[in-house]
Amino acid sequence: MGSEVIILRYGHRVVRDYRVTSHCCLVARALGADEVIIDGDEDKSLMNSVEKIVEKFGGNFKVSFTENWLKKLKELKKSGFKIVHLTMYGLPLEKQIKGIRKPKKVVIVIGSQKVERQVYEIADYNISVTQQPHSEIAALAVFLDWFFDGKELGNKFENAKIVIKPMKKGKCVVASCNE
Amino acid sequence: MGSEVIILRYGHRVVRDYRVTSHCCLVARALGADEVIIDGDEDKSLMNSVEKIVEKFGGNFKVSFTENWLKKLKELKKSGFKIVHLTMYGLPLEKQIKGIRKPKKVVIVIGSQKVERQVYEIADYNISVTQQPHSEIAALAVFLDWFFDGKELGNKFENAKIVIKPMKKGKCVVASCNE
Repeated sequence: MGSEVIILRYGHRVVRDYRVTSHCCLVARALGADEVIIDGDEDKSLMNSVEKIVEKFGGNFKVSFTENWLKKLKELKKSGFKIVHLTMYGLPLEKQIKGIRKPKKVVIVIGSQKVERQVYEIADYNISVTQQPHSEIAALAVFLDWFFDGKELGNKFENAKIVIKPMKKGKCVVASCNE
Repeated sequence: MGSEVIILRYGHRVVRDYRVTSHCCLVARALGADEVIIDGDEDKSLMNSVEKIVEKFGGNFKVSFTENWLKKLKELKKSGFKIVHLTMYGLPLEKQIKGIRKPKKVVIVIGSQKVERQVYEIADYNISVTQQPHSEIAALAVFLDWFFDGKELGNKFENAKIVIKPMKKGKCVVASCNE
């Protein structure tokens, strides 16, 4: 889609956040992001489980870890990325999205409950998906869906070994051909 | 908005699913649903944490548990609800949503990995939010956002003790007046 979208998952705690961060990665991939960078100690089992999905369901999605989220964000900002921080305290998504769609390169920062003040400061946009407490997984999903204007729902993934054929009832798994 | 939206969370396991089911409840509330019914053993701490949010942030959102999801769905169906089951195997959201918006009373069923065949059978609509594996939290969020056509993002919650004022940087919490 001519854009480059990276997610920075802030404050991942090994074991405790395993499932939530896994969901974040899979949502990022399914809804058109290119990459997730996880701030926290390297978590091999998380990485393996995401990589297995990519191997089966295709695409070029990447996951990596960083020990210094601030340095990483500064580097990305220098190379032309705009930083969008999703927080219930930010400006409403529905009013800001038009301006955000224009830069083609964005980093979306999603945190847990406690996010340092520096995240708010370095962000080009602090954006709320409602001003209610809910879920970083949901905020990311709704943000990506608005960012790509719903078109990401029809994305095809290259080199998929498993392709699902939509069905009214039941399940239909189609093995695709690898070229 | 003149509609009645209930979420049925299928297959909740106490402890293991605590965070994911909590996220589902808070997303349901934030994005305009009226109620979550959780299939599984009663989980007091989950219920308390959701109720605390409702008390602080307002609205009339309800959470309850059921020991018999099938009976519950049959009852709801009888009283005029249409059943929407979110599954990666279903028909694409973006192609089906217009037809689904018409019934004003819907139950949205969200499961975990293993969902019994009966769920596919009883559903009026099996709907996929992409045909990729990701997250029931994200699927629910994107579904609700499409169902309410984005208008739910501006919802106000009655009797809120805490109201957030959107800010470009930083946090602004406004205590609202209780009448």
